[in-house]
Amino acid sequence: MAAQLAPAWKITRWFNRAAPLDLAHLKGKVILLHAFQMLCPACVQLALPQAQRIFQQVDPADVAVIGLHTVFENHAVMTAEALAVFIRENRLTFPIGIDAPDGQDGIPLTMRAYQMRGTPSLILLDRKGCLRLHHFGHIDDLALGIVLGKLMQERGHD
Amino acid sequence: MAAQLAPAWKITRWFNRAAPLDLAHLKGKVILLHAFQMLCPACVQLALPQAQRIFQQVDPADVAVIGLHTVFENHAVMTAEALAVFIRENRLTFPIGIDAPDGQDGIPLTMRAYQMRGTPSLILLDRKGCLRLHHFGHIDDLALGIVLGKLMQERGHD
Amino acid sequence: MAAQLAPAWKITRWFNRAAPLDLAHLKGKVILLHAFQMLCPACVQLALPQAQRIFQQVDPADVAVIGLHTVFENHAVMTAEALAVFIRENRLTFPIGIDAPDGQDGIPLTMRAYQMRGTPSLILLDRKGCLRLHHFGHIDDLALGIVLGKLMQERGHD
Amino acid sequence: MAAQLAPAWKITRWFNRAAPLDLAHLKGKVILLHAFQMLCPACVQLALPQAQRIFQQVDPADVAVIGLHTVFENHAVMTAEALAVFIRENRLTFPIGIDAPDGQDGIPLTMRAYQMRGTPSLILLDRKGCLRLHHFGHIDDLALGIVLGKLMQERGHD
Repeated sequence: MAAQLAPAWKITRWFNRAAPLDLAHLKGKVILLHAFQMLCPACVQLALPQAQRIFQQVDPADVAVIGLHTVFENHAVMTAEALAVFIRENRLTFPIGIDAPDGQDGIPLTMRAYQMRGTPSLILLDRKGCLRLHHFGHIDDLALGIVLGKLMQERGHD
Repeated sequence: MAAQLAPAWKITRWFNRAAPLDLAHLKGKVILLHAFQMLCPACVQLALPQAQRIFQQVDPADVAVIGLHTVFENHAVMTAEALAVFIRENRLTFPIGIDAPDGQDGIPLTMRAYQMRGTPSLILLDRKGCLRLHHFGHIDDLALGIVLGKLMQERGHD
Repeated sequence: MAAQLAPAWKITRWFNRAAPLDLAHLKGKVILLHAFQMLCPACVQLALPQAQRIFQQVDPADVAVIGLHTVFENHAVMTAEALAVFIRENRLTFPIGIDAPDGQDGIPLTMRAYQMRGTPSLILLDRKGCLRLHHFGHIDDLALGIVLGKLMQERGHD
Repeated sequence: MAAQLAPAWKITRWFNRAAPLDLAHLKGKVILLHAFQMLCPACVQLALPQAQRIFQQVDPADVAVIGLHTVFENHAVMTAEALAVFIRENRLTFPIGIDAPDGQDGIPLTMRAYQMRGTPSLILLDRKGCLRLHHFGHIDDLALGIVLGKLMQERGHD
């Protein structure tokens, strides 16, 4: 059975990135998508430092590390302006997009499309753009490194 | 030379506390004042978890652990509403006050009165209300425990 | 009720110390006695690094940090010669004594006199030589710092 | 250029393993060889806990985690009897071999054959038995996981 092609992202604004990014641009790379909220403690203590560590260890031509701010609660205080301060103060340097609100129940569009259960959530896509890992909560560096290394070793044209 | 009596606090709102708190109420107790900003990484990663640990280990009748939200930058996003979410999400249970803005250069009034250099800052007052430690940055648990134990052992009427 | 005077130590050999040490020499100081075995994982991972941290933070004229090698099992491999290597490799610089074997059931004499339950064990004596804390297992830096600070603040002639 | 076939091991005794292990037995598996000394602090604090974590996360039919006790100093106290106690106390459950002494300058035979510089040293072999990583000192979980995952993804008959 073929793995599932990952849904498109709906992003309203990018940080640490001049032009918009989408799956088509990143075809051929392994993609790590870190969904977080800036006031979620496990995101701040564990998931975002891990994302930053990965970004500093991999070749950006080979692996794309992307943050996704999926605000599904407390919308009034986790604004784009607040996120800008948060990113600067925490010295996060990988591209981070704001997931588009849908105006209805508060769950943003990309979060909904990927059926994420909360934050932090980690999504891994292979070089063909297929979903290969979807993890809610923290995953330790060793386990993540092994999965990531396997995907890096796969060729895009297998 | 006698130690210096600590300046009064100017607080606009309390969390985890029904009635206002001031130095006069706490006379006879050792006081730990943790000054922080909710988007300061060292505060979130180190100082606030340490404050919470202390609060859980000491008798509140003997030692008062107090948080002080001293916003001196990025005022627009570190609002009272945002702080309320931050406190709830991080499960901070000790009393936390918002330091009063002065309407001029952005340095709030208590922060100015104590001549704090930034966040996190730790202030220790003895049972007579005198300033005994003023530390900018993180201090390790062992060093803080020793200073705190010494102040706890001092009697108020020495 | 008065606290109990601590039993004398029976030491067969000292490391990091030219002349023998005993309670009489240390009268007036607060004493931390760390009982350990060199092949006890919790001693190596937690208790000995903590003892070394304390030794580096306190004034040796005021607080004596003492290690006690209380071998009660696997005697054949935790010899004085092995301990010498262990101390050097782990860069332990505080005085460490070998608890005297009793030739019977394998429990050394000081360990027996203090009725220790195993390793690591932490013993705190006040300035008068009275036993004030006896803890089996690890104790965190904050809790230990508070107890230590209190004993440091007590005067020897109260 | 083809990678180098790894030298054979010279082992005098195995722990956590009934029959001897050698490279021929493990053909087709990825092999992690952790060279250590039981009284080397970085081995005890970092490398051996990492080896144990890996052993618990991987399928032993796919990845072989092997410890190698390469005693090149303080031979008198790091005996087989002492190692047996060390392994039991530290609850290490992966196979561990004692590197054969050569009776001359104290460097054991496997350590010499692999030209290791000290302990801890980490060796990674691919499914064909070729040397792919040789690291002296600690390597973090993320970096090791990535390299390991890549080797796991390679097929043996490429």
